[in-house]
Amino acid sequence: MGDVPPSHPRYASLMSRKRLTEAASRGMLAGSALIAHGRGEAFDYLLGERTSAPGRAAIRETAARLRAASRPVLSLNGNAVALAGADLLACAAALNCPVEINIYYRTPERMDALLAALEEMRAEAMAAHPDLPIAAVEILGAAPDARIPGLDGPRANCHAEGILSADALLVPLEDGDRCEALVGLGKTVCVIDLNPMSRTAKTACVTIVDELTRCVRLLLEDLLSPDLVASENWRNEQNLEDSLQVMLRNLGSGSQD
Amino acid sequence: MGDVPPSHPRYASLMSRKRLTEAASRGMLAGSALIAHGRGEAFDYLLGERTSAPGRAAIRETAARLRAASRPVLSLNGNAVALAGADLLACAAALNCPVEINIYYRTPERMDALLAALEEMRAEAMAAHPDLPIAAVEILGAAPDARIPGLDGPRANCHAEGILSADALLVPLEDGDRCEALVGLGKTVCVIDLNPMSRTAKTACVTIVDELTRCVRLLLEDLLSPDLVASENWRNEQNLEDSLQVMLRNLGSGSQD
Repeated sequence: MGDVPPSHPRYASLMSRKRLTEAASRGMLAGSALIAHGRGEAFDYLLGERTSAPGRAAIRETAARLRAASRPVLSLNGNAVALAGADLLACAAALNCPVEINIYYRTPERMDALLAALEEMRAEAMAAHPDLPIAAVEILGAAPDARIPGLDGPRANCHAEGILSADALLVPLEDGDRCEALVGLGKTVCVIDLNPMSRTAKTACVTIVDELTRCVRLLLEDLLSPDLVASENWRNEQNLEDSLQVMLRNLGSGSQD
Repeated sequence: MGDVPPSHPRYASLMSRKRLTEAASRGMLAGSALIAHGRGEAFDYLLGERTSAPGRAAIRETAARLRAASRPVLSLNGNAVALAGADLLACAAALNCPVEINIYYRTPERMDALLAALEEMRAEAMAAHPDLPIAAVEILGAAPDARIPGLDGPRANCHAEGILSADALLVPLEDGDRCEALVGLGKTVCVIDLNPMSRTAKTACVTIVDELTRCVRLLLEDLLSPDLVASENWRNEQNLEDSLQVMLRNLGSGSQD
């Protein structure tokens, strides 16, 4: 894998795979995280491994809603940290908001591994974006002091000053139940999910059907852009349908390898 | 996961996931094996998680070709052992042929873990199929003494009395290069691959676009059936196209969760 040149047509995909298998060996991921990534790979393959027009629109809408919020929070799971931790910290800095590590299969060891990895990535992000207040981004998750109502088990744990009191959330790769619970609390829930037919995708207020590392970079661009406004009549269902049509066209051409 | 009842609509899929994460913790799998499984899950989801009519036809064709061969061999990788080792041993017994463990990322530890797991599964298979000569199935792979011409690296290693001299092979979840090399040697290569657009799927003589555990059970049924003949004009390309159409219809209906 180390021999793959950046010019390789599937370089980004192979590097993501490498980052995730390394994260798994560092104890950052649950057993099912690599399987979830593989499912995403297949849907991204159907997308043609590029950001689609409906995906791009959903990124803009998400940026606008997060910026318009009073208390935005970026929720991070293991895959999000492993794949895009540095860029997500930069987004949080652009929004002047906290990130909160919120994992489904919570163990103290995993949480410690994720917090340590994210602190390493903070240095990386500061070097890449010296103009953003990345040093000041608060990283929540270590000591949850509240629960998301309507959810059972450790996945409900969260911070009162973080996810619980947020009015808008970005949640990459969310589980369906938690997404429903968060939407049920009246929050603006923006998710990143490559499967436009998943329960999460259908439940969220804005669904970005795109690959995480690609869309987070575009999200940062949008967050830093001066003229950004939320659509007055965002139709998430229509956007999902449009994403599905992109996949159908690609699958119908059947020309990929 | 242990609490999932057999009546759960996604029971089989969840059990496969459990078997694989357990196999990973036993050292049977390469780092990318879980990701590959996830990709398969997404394509199976597009199939509606059931064997399609074109898939069923490809299983019959594979059974007929393996039975008609003089020296069939079933090639097994880590995922195949973890997910369907016992049923694949039963298929080998029905064919009176060897299985050969042939893994891309070969280490002595992984090979030992796979051989040990497969011996455990032999007992399981013997209990399930007392009428089949499962005790006599030869398990190759431990001491490769030949190489597949035209391939570099450890993935070329094989047994002279196994894959190298086989006239027909069943290869679940094969890599594209190795599939090409085996077809180039004039062998009848039957593969199991959930992605009908993969290089392996397009290169093989017969491609079963179906989930491994499901199709191996049907393959065993066919191998035990008395009236089974290969099609005189099997058109693999057409069968792949038909499988793709099934996925397109399911994706187009977009009704899955």
